[in-house]
Amino acid sequence: MARHIHPKAYIYRESKPLPENSITVKGYDFNQGVDHRALLQSYISTGFQATNFGFAIEQINSMIKLRETPWKVGNTTVEEDPSTCPCLMSCTIFLGYTSNLISSGVRESIRFLAEHKMVDCLVTTAGGIEEDLIKCLAPVYIGEFSLCGKDLYKKGIDRIGNLLMPDNNYKLLDQWITPIFKAMLVEQNTQGVCWTPSKMIHRLGKEINNPQSVCYWAYKNNIPIFSPALTDGAIGDLLYLFSTNNTGLIIDINEDLIRINNMAVAANNTGIIILGGGVAKHHICNANAWRKGANFAVFVNTAQESDGSDSGARPDEAVTWGKIKTDAKPVKVYADATLVFPLLVAETFGRHYHNDDTDKKQC
Amino acid sequence: MARHIHPKAYIYRESKPLPENSITVKGYDFNQGVDHRALLQSYISTGFQATNFGFAIEQINSMIKLRETPWKVGNTTVEEDPSTCPCLMSCTIFLGYTSNLISSGVRESIRFLAEHKMVDCLVTTAGGIEEDLIKCLAPVYIGEFSLCGKDLYKKGIDRIGNLLMPDNNYKLLDQWITPIFKAMLVEQNTQGVCWTPSKMIHRLGKEINNPQSVCYWAYKNNIPIFSPALTDGAIGDLLYLFSTNNTGLIIDINEDLIRINNMAVAANNTGIIILGGGVAKHHICNANAWRKGANFAVFVNTAQESDGSDSGARPDEAVTWGKIKTDAKPVKVYADATLVFPLLVAETFGRHYHNDDTDKKQC
Amino acid sequence: MARHIHPKAYIYRESKPLPENSITVKGYDFNQGVDHRALLQSYISTGFQATNFGFAIEQINSMIKLRETPWKVGNTTVEEDPSTCPCLMSCTIFLGYTSNLISSGVRESIRFLAEHKMVDCLVTTAGGIEEDLIKCLAPVYIGEFSLCGKDLYKKGIDRIGNLLMPDNNYKLLDQWITPIFKAMLVEQNTQGVCWTPSKMIHRLGKEINNPQSVCYWAYKNNIPIFSPALTDGAIGDLLYLFSTNNTGLIIDINEDLIRINNMAVAANNTGIIILGGGVAKHHICNANAWRKGANFAVFVNTAQESDGSDSGARPDEAVTWGKIKTDAKPVKVYADATLVFPLLVAETFGRHYHNDDTDKKQC
Amino acid sequence: MARHIHPKAYIYRESKPLPENSITVKGYDFNQGVDHRALLQSYISTGFQATNFGFAIEQINSMIKLRETPWKVGNTTVEEDPSTCPCLMSCTIFLGYTSNLISSGVRESIRFLAEHKMVDCLVTTAGGIEEDLIKCLAPVYIGEFSLCGKDLYKKGIDRIGNLLMPDNNYKLLDQWITPIFKAMLVEQNTQGVCWTPSKMIHRLGKEINNPQSVCYWAYKNNIPIFSPALTDGAIGDLLYLFSTNNTGLIIDINEDLIRINNMAVAANNTGIIILGGGVAKHHICNANAWRKGANFAVFVNTAQESDGSDSGARPDEAVTWGKIKTDAKPVKVYADATLVFPLLVAETFGRHYHNDDTDKKQC
Repeated sequence: MARHIHPKAYIYRESKPLPENSITVKGYDFNQGVDHRALLQSYISTGFQATNFGFAIEQINSMIKLRETPWKVGNTTVEEDPSTCPCLMSCTIFLGYTSNLISSGVRESIRFLAEHKMVDCLVTTAGGIEEDLIKCLAPVYIGEFSLCGKDLYKKGIDRIGNLLMPDNNYKLLDQWITPIFKAMLVEQNTQGVCWTPSKMIHRLGKEINNPQSVCYWAYKNNIPIFSPALTDGAIGDLLYLFSTNNTGLIIDINEDLIRINNMAVAANNTGIIILGGGVAKHHICNANAWRKGANFAVFVNTAQESDGSDSGARPDEAVTWGKIKTDAKPVKVYADATLVFPLLVAETFGRHYHNDDTDKKQC
Repeated sequence: MARHIHPKAYIYRESKPLPENSITVKGYDFNQGVDHRALLQSYISTGFQATNFGFAIEQINSMIKLRETPWKVGNTTVEEDPSTCPCLMSCTIFLGYTSNLISSGVRESIRFLAEHKMVDCLVTTAGGIEEDLIKCLAPVYIGEFSLCGKDLYKKGIDRIGNLLMPDNNYKLLDQWITPIFKAMLVEQNTQGVCWTPSKMIHRLGKEINNPQSVCYWAYKNNIPIFSPALTDGAIGDLLYLFSTNNTGLIIDINEDLIRINNMAVAANNTGIIILGGGVAKHHICNANAWRKGANFAVFVNTAQESDGSDSGARPDEAVTWGKIKTDAKPVKVYADATLVFPLLVAETFGRHYHNDDTDKKQC
Repeated sequence: MARHIHPKAYIYRESKPLPENSITVKGYDFNQGVDHRALLQSYISTGFQATNFGFAIEQINSMIKLRETPWKVGNTTVEEDPSTCPCLMSCTIFLGYTSNLISSGVRESIRFLAEHKMVDCLVTTAGGIEEDLIKCLAPVYIGEFSLCGKDLYKKGIDRIGNLLMPDNNYKLLDQWITPIFKAMLVEQNTQGVCWTPSKMIHRLGKEINNPQSVCYWAYKNNIPIFSPALTDGAIGDLLYLFSTNNTGLIIDINEDLIRINNMAVAANNTGIIILGGGVAKHHICNANAWRKGANFAVFVNTAQESDGSDSGARPDEAVTWGKIKTDAKPVKVYADATLVFPLLVAETFGRHYHNDDTDKKQC
Repeated sequence: MARHIHPKAYIYRESKPLPENSITVKGYDFNQGVDHRALLQSYISTGFQATNFGFAIEQINSMIKLRETPWKVGNTTVEEDPSTCPCLMSCTIFLGYTSNLISSGVRESIRFLAEHKMVDCLVTTAGGIEEDLIKCLAPVYIGEFSLCGKDLYKKGIDRIGNLLMPDNNYKLLDQWITPIFKAMLVEQNTQGVCWTPSKMIHRLGKEINNPQSVCYWAYKNNIPIFSPALTDGAIGDLLYLFSTNNTGLIIDINEDLIRINNMAVAANNTGIIILGGGVAKHHICNANAWRKGANFAVFVNTAQESDGSDSGARPDEAVTWGKIKTDAKPVKVYADATLVFPLLVAETFGRHYHNDDTDKKQC
């Protein structure tokens, strides 16, 4: 019995119609000139991560809108509980970011948000604090990913991706921060201050007293910055040096945990924006489980789900844990945040702050 | 002998000064308002991939500038050899892209470049041709990455990442393309036409006769599109169906190879822009080895070098092969091209075409 | 109205029972000694990509088992049609691989499969052929990913990830292959041979006559190797050189397309194993759409779906296109194939070939 | 002046000879049978990540060898300082791992190392502790990455990549752990115990009293487990619940920091093995900067350097910071640790523990 080849057996399938409101794929038409706003608005219909970028704009703009809406129960406006709720508005925004983003120029975008009190809670790792402080003392430079490690070590230059940090800068941090540690230890021992990472960061933000600093504006605007592993970096190094002559400084992470969870529980709605992975991501998500999920969520990172890491987990994994609500429309943009976050700020917070309605005028 | 802990042993290293022209890391200041151009110009000092984005703008603008400079040897302008050299200018630009980018809205950016003859040679895979044609016949839609495969199959909907292609559309392509295949076979058999992928694509571009199409403008402007594996996709499927009753159509890849290599050899300088990996990347690089390397190079993709693939190889690997010159400053932006390429076009080709010097006016 | 914090509101959810046959996560217990086979068998219950590795073993062993089962329709054994069907068994196995894997030591695993005729169809890119041939002429070496491109260029050393290829080797390929091109051109012009990539590779496999070569064993065992973009590499370079004095050699990709599609259509069942992305992946999947999908599928690569590339597409995307059957259990292992494929061969083809039932003996 | 095409201008470069001890690329020959040990030994000459796997084996075996060598200064054996130095041997091994690896079956490999006291210091995140404990109370199951989040949420099932955790399990953890919290608080208030994450984990390891547990064996063998962000997970959730009626439990991260840094400073040599990124990676590296760098280093993760994250940083970035010595030969294997780590243990610690010299016998 010989087999015969019948390619015509391949009858193309009949296609059921797509939902009526389906978006047709269409990119920006440069024949219209270079209108960046219109270009970025075309991203939602461009596909792949450009589409996710478009959805991320929608998520953040929804957060912003609700954050300006007074929170009422019936006709009664909810009273302030300043210890847990930074505003009485209907949406509390949590922003998480890894340390490298503060080393990078994304710091200026985050500083803008803190300066104008457009977010309510920040979460980062140790480097996310110390790099912010150190940049007030001395600059960080653009370098290259491929520079030879041995050469840089000998030159006293530390590398962070394609950024270069003179190791000198840590001496400056040492000189600046050690007196603060001393004062903190005195306050602990004489006034019974119980230090936590967020209280310590608040103090550092006050002391740095520099409008370039995220920590400074967070201090000014009473935005807590949580960083449970605050000792894991240069601050820890300097605490270690400090400990040789000054023992007994306690940094309690339990009180901070209660504080972040209370913020999530107290909020009417929450929006979470997380740049990168690790603790900055998990800590915000975990706190939001206490309110049965964030209402809005944007993740920006390059990690992939395939290794089962929390960093790489899609938002839908957070849904299973009750960290994001089942009816939310969370978005993950798979990209380095340096490419994406300043543009996201431009189309959301930045635009909103400046009452920029350029595109409406065009209509 | 007891060991003692001496943390003070950690003396911070003295740092040698960085080169004088080193760029200080600094991001965009949104207190200045939302000025997209200034924002994108700040990327070069933002770090990580934003910096690479900034360098990519520089590479492409260098290509454009040189491409408008007449090619002279002494006082003599070089004569045209239209078979190999699309222009007599001093830089030939090769643009490669994978098929999914034509499925996406990046197609409109590429079409703009082809329409205004701003690039000289295109290289893509089979889908990069057929998706361009099919979009002239029926739309593609935005979907989701996580839609269930079995459900979509039953509905006759094909998925491309988060895009949806009704399988119906291939019937339309069948109806449109099969008469062209017939004509091609006749021309082969009666006029001795020796078909190659690039000639076939040229013909398809002519026939589609639609200003939305990249192939159409490439045809109009005599920009060759190379696609050595042209049979690997729907065009191949339809050739296979066609072959049941119409045997003997030959598609020769050897002649095309000579053609693309000649283009590289004939050029005064070359710039290469490659979106994605695979054949689209390798073919352009390989051709440029024949001229001992491209002068300018921009890669945009998400692939990583760790698995040794050509797709993930850094530009510096291409340098070892002589595909990029040792004194070039090639850049790879690690990102999905949908996020990056329209913005790159905005700051380079788009801006140039529209004589847009917004930022200069600000000075 | 003051808000109160009620953390107890977080009542852990009641969990519905999981399906009875759910696998409990459990890794290998090294207290049992180092039994590699038992260790690899524990991978299925280890989670993340180890679990996918375990499922991949199951897929491949299913292919192998079916491939040894005669194909009967009723009581009648199906007759051979040697032009399309390499065996009369119930499963045809397609193996795809990118060129870098032939540069690497994965070549020896693939050679083993070709030597013992354990697969039926191979698909690769140009480098997947020429690197196999070149390794019969001179060695390739282990290097480092970070070696300086400029230095290597000057030394005449080409880099492939962390492998090093002396550029000299291409001269050896030139000397070896050019006489074959000459003979091919003569055969075309005098005997009417219509060359296709697969016929050309068959010829090269015959000529290399070296048991280290994949191409050699594919030739010996009549396993077609498809490579539609065969000109995109050193073979193309040497064809280009050849063309200066010897014009008119035609390499037709249309006939090969018909051949691979016919193989898929003719098969009773198919299994596909694809290492890496690009044409090697798409071409096999596309051919299998002609039979409404492969029955078994294993992908091994590092590409991610987020950029919408076919390389990164999960198997479930192939299901929507009918490239994999809706009732198949395809597996993607997210890993560099050098780590995974030799181990997969050990637990499937290798074990089967050597009648290795070590684990059974232990019972 | 017409241009002429001269492809012969491409003269293949002369290649300088490679160093004499260069390894020729060669994979495992399955014609020799399936000998897993020989197969894994062939990885070093296989290329790409297989080669890195081979180098990682060498790094770890060097650590093990030195760790068994008494530490002498002149003829004097160094005295023990049990508070900082777990052994008097010449190499202290730090092992870091992210929480998901404890959820996975990699836990059993880590448990083996803790049980037999083959490592000296562990660093992980909160989940790396609680998932170890919870698995002593109830199982975790294999699921799929693509399961619908909303469905799982409703079923009370939490997803971790392709693992499934019944949310019920956290109730079991609650019942088990809350009495311990109570006792800890009493001890703090009555005995002046100053709790740190490592002390708390030591206590939990004691209480769980289960030989399946990493924490248990770390307790038994006095291997400290550091986890500065210990509150960021279910332990934090239960501390939060606990706090509603039991205030004032302090968990100090400063003392732990001093402890881990002292371990690094006190060591004669150090080897670091880090699976995954985030705090688990950074904390070990940072501590090793206090001794001017680790002597041996193996990283296993999937993160990439392109986004400037510490997780994705190559070992060479750690060299610039003095976290790894300039003369070390650190290795990063780009892979999910579930695929790689059990095999690494097989070829290093496992083999060593069982005095397995199979390959030598073959000689």
